[in-house]
Amino acid sequence: MTNFLTVKTAEEVLALIEGFEPLAPERVGLHGAVGRILAEAITAPESVPHFNRALMDGFAVRARDTFGASESQPALLRDGGEVKMGEACVPEGLPGNAIAIPTGAMVPAGTDSVVMIEYTSRLDSESIEVMKPVAPGENILLAGEDIQAGQPVFSTGHFLRPQDIGVLAVLGIDSVKVYCKPRVAILSTGDEIVPVSTIALPPGKIRDINSYTLAAQVLEVGAITGTIEVVGDDLDCLVAACRRALADHDVILISGGSSVGVRDLTVLALDSLAEADLLVHGVAVRPGKPTILARAGRKILWGLPGHPISAMTICRTFVLPCLYSLQGLKGKPAWKDAGAERAVLTRKLPSVHGRTDYVPVVLRETPEGLAATPVFGKSAMIGALARSDGYIVIDRHVEGLDAGAEVRVHLFHANLGR
Amino acid sequence: MTNFLTVKTAEEVLALIEGFEPLAPERVGLHGAVGRILAEAITAPESVPHFNRALMDGFAVRARDTFGASESQPALLRDGGEVKMGEACVPEGLPGNAIAIPTGAMVPAGTDSVVMIEYTSRLDSESIEVMKPVAPGENILLAGEDIQAGQPVFSTGHFLRPQDIGVLAVLGIDSVKVYCKPRVAILSTGDEIVPVSTIALPPGKIRDINSYTLAAQVLEVGAITGTIEVVGDDLDCLVAACRRALADHDVILISGGSSVGVRDLTVLALDSLAEADLLVHGVAVRPGKPTILARAGRKILWGLPGHPISAMTICRTFVLPCLYSLQGLKGKPAWKDAGAERAVLTRKLPSVHGRTDYVPVVLRETPEGLAATPVFGKSAMIGALARSDGYIVIDRHVEGLDAGAEVRVHLFHANLGR
Repeated sequence: MTNFLTVKTAEEVLALIEGFEPLAPERVGLHGAVGRILAEAITAPESVPHFNRALMDGFAVRARDTFGASESQPALLRDGGEVKMGEACVPEGLPGNAIAIPTGAMVPAGTDSVVMIEYTSRLDSESIEVMKPVAPGENILLAGEDIQAGQPVFSTGHFLRPQDIGVLAVLGIDSVKVYCKPRVAILSTGDEIVPVSTIALPPGKIRDINSYTLAAQVLEVGAITGTIEVVGDDLDCLVAACRRALADHDVILISGGSSVGVRDLTVLALDSLAEADLLVHGVAVRPGKPTILARAGRKILWGLPGHPISAMTICRTFVLPCLYSLQGLKGKPAWKDAGAERAVLTRKLPSVHGRTDYVPVVLRETPEGLAATPVFGKSAMIGALARSDGYIVIDRHVEGLDAGAEVRVHLFHANLGR
Repeated sequence: MTNFLTVKTAEEVLALIEGFEPLAPERVGLHGAVGRILAEAITAPESVPHFNRALMDGFAVRARDTFGASESQPALLRDGGEVKMGEACVPEGLPGNAIAIPTGAMVPAGTDSVVMIEYTSRLDSESIEVMKPVAPGENILLAGEDIQAGQPVFSTGHFLRPQDIGVLAVLGIDSVKVYCKPRVAILSTGDEIVPVSTIALPPGKIRDINSYTLAAQVLEVGAITGTIEVVGDDLDCLVAACRRALADHDVILISGGSSVGVRDLTVLALDSLAEADLLVHGVAVRPGKPTILARAGRKILWGLPGHPISAMTICRTFVLPCLYSLQGLKGKPAWKDAGAERAVLTRKLPSVHGRTDYVPVVLRETPEGLAATPVFGKSAMIGALARSDGYIVIDRHVEGLDAGAEVRVHLFHANLGR
């Protein structure tokens, strides 16, 4: 087992993660494709629309026949028949004709625009008055105007949003190749940890938190939770649990036991797994410095701190990007801090040069805008995290932030209610 | 059937939606509770932690015994034994004693602080040197310091985030009452609509888009999709499909047929459902003005525009908040635009006083910050929406925006990669 025991920066760990190869691809139907990441590039097999489409209810005409038309001097056109919705057989647009057409129907050959019904009036069974001129192309979606046949539509590694599913649907692509969802095992270690169902809590014991918080976080990025287990502070038990989990999971999260102390079991357990390579042992962040990252073949093992706030912070900062990387996500937007709010810090926050800090804050509306107040809590306090609205990042090049500094607050559940 | 045919503002429609009663509650286990909304208030049944907990590996001491200690003048303490992880039976902290303790273990009675192991040194089998003084309470999480027994923790209507699940876990609450997920039926209407699996697309026909985009959007807020069906432009068929869907869904989305034209079928269909009350017919927004909202008993029916961009915009703006309202969400944060980015508009955008506009934009990094360029596309263009990164809202009190205006861009999938 190779050991790199120098502490890495957050950026170095993220760069390592970005280099992880994605899992195998699988084919899914369109209704199951939202939130998945493409394992193939998509080229448009045909144009959309594949015929000139009316965008309004009205009359298809030749634009030149409406030239100069007005309320007082309407253009007089002949009734040229009617286009039926969804039908290909349409009357030809002869000069001087107006053909009734509903929104979405096929614009007849010989016509080049649609007059909205509001600007027309039927004079008699054979004549239509047009009160407003139209320009060629007006109220028409031209064949191929939305998507051209042969056009590259999505590249490999693209995250499929609802509108992207719509594009695949309109192109007749009813299934796509996406990368498999990572299967994640969660091992919560510590002799003090007892199951949540424990009713009378013995002194010295604490109920399992990390299994629940980590499982909930993992679901946010579309991964699947498999084994979720509490393991005592026993090397053999931990090694055995890791081996079992490696058999049918892609990622193993081990919380607890990662600090440099008497209970430094995670590293010892990884040492006993012959095939595991220790990639990271220690990251210049707070909380979560004793984070461990190892690889066994293509399986990934994370050693997370035992304190709940630390474990959640490291999960959000490194494990979730890792789970996206294993799903093949490419080309994150440059504004990848998406879901952040600008706010003003209400008090000074000291930090240390060379270390990235993650600080939970509460947001409050003020007449001057949003105010962010740090939630001071020790990293073992889960309640403190529940009382906060998001967190701020203090860059490792910065020695702290003054009261009044503008900060970006990364919101917990930014997608809520949008 | 009561008809209110005056166009409502977006705010009026949202106020109506907020008044909808939530669905029935159900009980779920903790692993299924993330993203759900509480149908009960939670009070802490016990304190967290329920004993004084060590936050560091080291020695539990009486702070006064370390007073004045330094590297050159260490305090000399007696070896007072050891606290075992997760055990209640701990040695008593006699004056002048130092008791070895691991992180997370129970701090012995008689001691009031923990000296980090880094600042200690074992002199011999009976003596420990302490090189740094500690203050009372240092490196200890006091009983009840995180959560006090009897403290209100969450109120009814609270959205459960991962850290909230952690709080429930630590309190031993292994299941909670949450509001049921709405079951949503999606009816895509129009004679021109053919299934996505149609290979050779006849002229005049277009594949079903809205079923896919609406289903994908609905999943984002934790609702369940049930029946998804294409219905032709036939009143009897649409009424029959509505009746079938009403039987086992909470919400029905009908896309298409909602514009004032020959095919105004949705309103006619709702008219034929004796029990339906038309609450909204027309909203002062663009796109999506002909939106319909009706209620049949406690079931909700939405008539959405047929054009894909319009249907998605109305779904995001009104249907998703409606689905949250049915799930009992209360107390949205004041910064409910969460997931927005500030950017500078690259060109003038005209609008109309009294109407709220939703305009898709592409974001680009520039040396001066993010630039937002409107994606001009007709509302039938799904490809245009897929090419955009988010959208901006032009308030109804504003007559348009100038180039260079600062705008908030609501990102599609703001939670991506965080």
